[in-house]
Amino acid sequence: MVAEGKKGKVILAYSGGLDTSCILLWLIEQGYEVVAFMADVGQEEDFEAAKTKAMKCGAAGFFLEDLKREFVEQLIYPAVQCNAIYENVYLLGTSLARPVIARGMMEVALREGCDFVSHGCTGKGNDQVRFELAFYGLSPSIKVIAPWRLPEFYERFAGRSALLDYAAKNGIPVTQTAAKPWSTDENLFHISYEAGILEDPNTTPPDDMWKLTTSPLKAPEQPETLTIEWSRGLPTKVTKQDGTTVTDAVEVFLTLNALARKHGVGRIDIVENRFIGVKSRGCYESPAATILRVAHMDLEGMTLDRNVRALRDQFITTAFSQILYNGFFFSPEREFVTAAIPQSQKTVNGFTRLKLYKGNVIVEGRDSDEGLYDAKFSSMDEQGGFEPTATSGFIDISSIRIKAWAVANGKRGQSGVAVGDVYNRE
Amino acid sequence: MVAEGKKGKVILAYSGGLDTSCILLWLIEQGYEVVAFMADVGQEEDFEAAKTKAMKCGAAGFFLEDLKREFVEQLIYPAVQCNAIYENVYLLGTSLARPVIARGMMEVALREGCDFVSHGCTGKGNDQVRFELAFYGLSPSIKVIAPWRLPEFYERFAGRSALLDYAAKNGIPVTQTAAKPWSTDENLFHISYEAGILEDPNTTPPDDMWKLTTSPLKAPEQPETLTIEWSRGLPTKVTKQDGTTVTDAVEVFLTLNALARKHGVGRIDIVENRFIGVKSRGCYESPAATILRVAHMDLEGMTLDRNVRALRDQFITTAFSQILYNGFFFSPEREFVTAAIPQSQKTVNGFTRLKLYKGNVIVEGRDSDEGLYDAKFSSMDEQGGFEPTATSGFIDISSIRIKAWAVANGKRGQSGVAVGDVYNRE
Amino acid sequence: MVAEGKKGKVILAYSGGLDTSCILLWLIEQGYEVVAFMADVGQEEDFEAAKTKAMKCGAAGFFLEDLKREFVEQLIYPAVQCNAIYENVYLLGTSLARPVIARGMMEVALREGCDFVSHGCTGKGNDQVRFELAFYGLSPSIKVIAPWRLPEFYERFAGRSALLDYAAKNGIPVTQTAAKPWSTDENLFHISYEAGILEDPNTTPPDDMWKLTTSPLKAPEQPETLTIEWSRGLPTKVTKQDGTTVTDAVEVFLTLNALARKHGVGRIDIVENRFIGVKSRGCYESPAATILRVAHMDLEGMTLDRNVRALRDQFITTAFSQILYNGFFFSPEREFVTAAIPQSQKTVNGFTRLKLYKGNVIVEGRDSDEGLYDAKFSSMDEQGGFEPTATSGFIDISSIRIKAWAVANGKRGQSGVAVGDVYNRE
Amino acid sequence: MVAEGKKGKVILAYSGGLDTSCILLWLIEQGYEVVAFMADVGQEEDFEAAKTKAMKCGAAGFFLEDLKREFVEQLIYPAVQCNAIYENVYLLGTSLARPVIARGMMEVALREGCDFVSHGCTGKGNDQVRFELAFYGLSPSIKVIAPWRLPEFYERFAGRSALLDYAAKNGIPVTQTAAKPWSTDENLFHISYEAGILEDPNTTPPDDMWKLTTSPLKAPEQPETLTIEWSRGLPTKVTKQDGTTVTDAVEVFLTLNALARKHGVGRIDIVENRFIGVKSRGCYESPAATILRVAHMDLEGMTLDRNVRALRDQFITTAFSQILYNGFFFSPEREFVTAAIPQSQKTVNGFTRLKLYKGNVIVEGRDSDEGLYDAKFSSMDEQGGFEPTATSGFIDISSIRIKAWAVANGKRGQSGVAVGDVYNRE
Repeated sequence: MVAEGKKGKVILAYSGGLDTSCILLWLIEQGYEVVAFMADVGQEEDFEAAKTKAMKCGAAGFFLEDLKREFVEQLIYPAVQCNAIYENVYLLGTSLARPVIARGMMEVALREGCDFVSHGCTGKGNDQVRFELAFYGLSPSIKVIAPWRLPEFYERFAGRSALLDYAAKNGIPVTQTAAKPWSTDENLFHISYEAGILEDPNTTPPDDMWKLTTSPLKAPEQPETLTIEWSRGLPTKVTKQDGTTVTDAVEVFLTLNALARKHGVGRIDIVENRFIGVKSRGCYESPAATILRVAHMDLEGMTLDRNVRALRDQFITTAFSQILYNGFFFSPEREFVTAAIPQSQKTVNGFTRLKLYKGNVIVEGRDSDEGLYDAKFSSMDEQGGFEPTATSGFIDISSIRIKAWAVANGKRGQSGVAVGDVYNRE
Repeated sequence: MVAEGKKGKVILAYSGGLDTSCILLWLIEQGYEVVAFMADVGQEEDFEAAKTKAMKCGAAGFFLEDLKREFVEQLIYPAVQCNAIYENVYLLGTSLARPVIARGMMEVALREGCDFVSHGCTGKGNDQVRFELAFYGLSPSIKVIAPWRLPEFYERFAGRSALLDYAAKNGIPVTQTAAKPWSTDENLFHISYEAGILEDPNTTPPDDMWKLTTSPLKAPEQPETLTIEWSRGLPTKVTKQDGTTVTDAVEVFLTLNALARKHGVGRIDIVENRFIGVKSRGCYESPAATILRVAHMDLEGMTLDRNVRALRDQFITTAFSQILYNGFFFSPEREFVTAAIPQSQKTVNGFTRLKLYKGNVIVEGRDSDEGLYDAKFSSMDEQGGFEPTATSGFIDISSIRIKAWAVANGKRGQSGVAVGDVYNRE
Repeated sequence: MVAEGKKGKVILAYSGGLDTSCILLWLIEQGYEVVAFMADVGQEEDFEAAKTKAMKCGAAGFFLEDLKREFVEQLIYPAVQCNAIYENVYLLGTSLARPVIARGMMEVALREGCDFVSHGCTGKGNDQVRFELAFYGLSPSIKVIAPWRLPEFYERFAGRSALLDYAAKNGIPVTQTAAKPWSTDENLFHISYEAGILEDPNTTPPDDMWKLTTSPLKAPEQPETLTIEWSRGLPTKVTKQDGTTVTDAVEVFLTLNALARKHGVGRIDIVENRFIGVKSRGCYESPAATILRVAHMDLEGMTLDRNVRALRDQFITTAFSQILYNGFFFSPEREFVTAAIPQSQKTVNGFTRLKLYKGNVIVEGRDSDEGLYDAKFSSMDEQGGFEPTATSGFIDISSIRIKAWAVANGKRGQSGVAVGDVYNRE
Repeated sequence: MVAEGKKGKVILAYSGGLDTSCILLWLIEQGYEVVAFMADVGQEEDFEAAKTKAMKCGAAGFFLEDLKREFVEQLIYPAVQCNAIYENVYLLGTSLARPVIARGMMEVALREGCDFVSHGCTGKGNDQVRFELAFYGLSPSIKVIAPWRLPEFYERFAGRSALLDYAAKNGIPVTQTAAKPWSTDENLFHISYEAGILEDPNTTPPDDMWKLTTSPLKAPEQPETLTIEWSRGLPTKVTKQDGTTVTDAVEVFLTLNALARKHGVGRIDIVENRFIGVKSRGCYESPAATILRVAHMDLEGMTLDRNVRALRDQFITTAFSQILYNGFFFSPEREFVTAAIPQSQKTVNGFTRLKLYKGNVIVEGRDSDEGLYDAKFSSMDEQGGFEPTATSGFIDISSIRIKAWAVANGKRGQSGVAVGDVYNRE
């Protein structure tokens, strides 16, 4: 065995669980000095117990960083501002936490003079990529040790029992209750479930899997209303049904979480495409984020110019969401695509009134002083805004290409009416 | 007054209501011969009464076409295949019906030798554009009479009472019950509500406005399950909870409509951007379409290649949805964008299991024989599919650009860690 | 005739030519007070003679604004920064000048208390749209008088001789030499030719049409070299072959113009699609702009991250070019798309060495201190930068989707090799 | 040493050069049976000599496939149809050949019962990826041996002299003339140059590097004209200045190659972004392809609907070009994006008249019977096509959003005129 610390100093993303405890032990066994790092991003966790365990494993230090505010303000809200979503369904809860955690960790690494970064991610998931690209983006010369991709580790610890044995042999108490038949990742934005019994995509998740939200079937019979106020696309105030309000960025998010959880809002069950190119089944609860998405998009209908919205949706939203999902947060393309977000949100001011009921987020109304909505222009019931005759000119000009095409199609015998089909499906 | 028919023959999109009855009378008064056209696209309507009224108004003919199957098979299902949606919320129910109606109408126009087409759309909405561009795309030399954009018409009939007087004077019975304080458009896909009291975007629609769906609050306490089978992205079979099945294209849609309506599925309330550039508030009920969207997107997660999905979402879905909304169905760009849809759907085969409950469409599971999902590849619990070490190489290569950027940023003093911000919000 | 000035005050975009002189006279005849406005955007023009003529026509004032610097710095260079181009060929010379002219004009309008804006653009072109949308974007309540779209004007002045007669009758000297059989628009960026004999798209433009550039056939036999230095995507210094340098923004552009004109650089002849939906044939000379495009794109190869480049090309470049072409400069979407340009250019620093020769702009070399190019990484001749084995992992992971697809295709009997086709062309 | 053939049968992409000869020897030494494969894609090569050498090295077989027609018809022309180009400059000559070569090779592999595929690509380039992804896409269970990524190979043969020694030791004649200080890849579409002295991006390529084209400086003083006829976007006939014509697909391409080479057409010198994320400098000669690109894009101006062109450019062209460059030809996304190409080209019929002169491809005129260009609509000189007043309505409606925005901006004190800036550059 190499003398401890001979190989250099490692900062390990520690969870307090079996895997990272064994990794901690193993790294020391390999000759590294190891410090353990934990980020508080709002997950339910006994940080004190984790610290005790890490030190017992031989960690040369334990660092806990509270990153909740940074998570909400610097990652979550910009994502809300551009309606970030992956494959039209996944709200990116894990993806959004990774840059914050990586950054907190690299700050400690820098301060503590670490030469290596290590983590317990498996070799098939997205998180290994997200973490490592973030490490490299923050500190390009850092070295990464990913034990689950090292044959000397994954061959030695091929099953759970090998890990348990190793922990026991090293005197590490494994206070494992019966393991759940799935894996989870939790933070204040969401919880994810994958693997285990969920790998059969036709297996309905058991009721007791869902941890954060009440089942819509068991949610209150009475709906509950709330109002969210927005400034430049950021939620600045929540007024609850009882008239109480919160305005602090983190409090706003946590308040919405509580309301959504109570009313069964934010569950999804999907098959998604991982960055490495495999499909995987995941279930997620994203309570507050689901409310915020509905409310923000609704207010954008009222306050965002049509063409800005279309361009932003097609370019920024899609690109940013992929960047987040794939782990390229600290990249030139992320810097580029986010540069235009603030400009897109300058008119997104106003409020949305919502009703929560058994899984539903129902928009009841919205308003804004921006003035881009003007009933005078849209009203079917009265003249106003512009001359009806102008629309005739608009249609005439818009039809120039259409008529030219119809004539050209006619020449080759493809007149829509004559041929008799609206849409040819092969 | 010009002698009747002297000016040529007009086919009028007739609804049986006050507006188009007055237009019918007025066109005859202007010297046109007028035939009335109605399309049955699944709306709730007394076609017999409408015919009687049209003939009483002086129509030289009345033509009713049943276009329900064409609507479902040629418009709705291709839209389902590419998840068509406008501004992320509106499922395009009115937009989808217009090409079918216009085409049915132009066939009659051609057969009956009409020189003009007329309709009762206002000068501020989308439907005038959708109808007229469709007319021109089908028959580029047709002439359109849009009375609500002609000063001689809209100035004469400035308010509802002028129309009522005109109808009365001409002996047309106006069996108007008290008018609803909003306008609607209905077909088998959806019903829309706009104008009137809805023009205040902060007014919550009254409960009794919603016509098609049960309120989620009053929907059954018991959830109901169903399974939808898909072939090449088309819903080919629905199995209800009681085991009964339907397979006919139209029946599938109507069955889903019935289920969704019962369980309060498919309501939205939005502010949208019309093609002419004004914002307008609309409420919609799209029952079956909402189920199909959830189920189709879910199965695509399982069966569509990641990159095909991303390309299709970004290019085809967005473009096709805008084309539909803006009324450019009979256009070169529509022919172009739909050309790639069938190719994108060739693997979308399998089934989705759903549960409906008080406004929620909950995915309970899905499966497919396509084989693009393979738990062996994604499983966190076992080796399989590829070597964990391969991922190291993948990350190394993926990080080349990231490291180069971090080094370049570092040179100009912008190292993310040092500077201390993850995301600069101006 | 209405008394002069009774109808209000008009600012007219005046060119000194026959059309706008007649419009000036006609507006006064209609009862307006008219002030004439000319912008110096680098066109070859006798502004003094134009002023004399305008005053002789009865203008109540004449305003000439030198907008060359604003044109170069605020419009041209941002377009260079994002390689703006319409339909892959047209460098947008006229489009770029319009916002500058409109803004100069609206400043005078505001200062002089004008109620109306007028111009001599025809009813079929792009410029009417560009001007008017710019006017509205700068001053939404301004009223526009577009005589060539008013029947009372265009029917009265149906041909050139009617204009000549009207000018003569009003004592306006028309020192017209024989009119060229095409129309032109000139500024320091370019000259355009359209209409007249060019309307036959198969007619080769006569040699003597081209005004700015030497024919490549007659350009010098000796090539000439130059170096352009860039800072954040802006050309900051030109070093000519003789070692002389220029650094002022306008001087840089004019120097490149002179070099390009001498060497026959920058001619194109195209059929393009106007905003109103008609195709039109145009010929253009854009000398300096052609050099800048080649040099800027070349340096971006060296200094821009790959993904930033791809995202910028697909989203910003295309959208900004369409916005410029269609005249939506003063719009929310323009504000939005340009917001990300500076971020994209922060690494575009360095120089490009060029050779001009008979129409060719040949890149001879380039360099940059940014460090994103690193021969160590790309060198085929030596190890360096990363392990060759890493690429194996990269390819393994990249092929996961490919293999899954090949297997799925194989199941339905579509194996590429077996079926025997690489690409099915219908 | 393992007995020959014990490890299975390998098909090697053989070039006849030093590298692949050594690889052939080495593979046999490792215990494989090896057959050599060469594709004739139009490169200048002594195939007979290569065969002799391969057999002398111990190849168990030698297979030469003439893939020129397949290359032109199935890869090059579809790329021409959608104006495929990478990073706006590179015409993809190497990328286009790889799928054809891989497919020819896999056919032999299948026929000859090979278990492995091998090639001589380095571990840093694009070609290794393109080949291997193509192999996997055609035959997902094939195994690849990439010696330049195997430490046992690349460490043993670290420099050129090691290869020379090995060849000499094995009695393989190395008839190397003095090696050029760069690498090349040649086929009938193009030749590429990279590495060696070109790795300094500021080194101007020596005149004698360029192999295919005459230097523009030495090209004929007399221009030469030609006409290309197109059917559905495919070049179907070339008429040379002397009136002779060619119509066969391959002959058309070779004829254009000859003309372009003579007149110095088709050289570029760029820094590009490889798929693995490194920048690399490359020089290319693509003679015929350069002419075809100019001519095809020109005819599309005349014959392609504006919106189809814009959608195709933004989506298909970019995506297809990236797919080709990165080597994903046999992929679901390639199948998807090419599905829409034929629809986009159905109107691209007509001819383009060109003049070649010292590096320039000058369009002299074009025509088409499609009828989408109609001078009556675009003519500035006469009324026709539509009413000038219609344009007023078009502009009025188009300005609704603009005015609303200007009013909203004004409310927050950002009126463009008042603030005095057209474009804020940070």
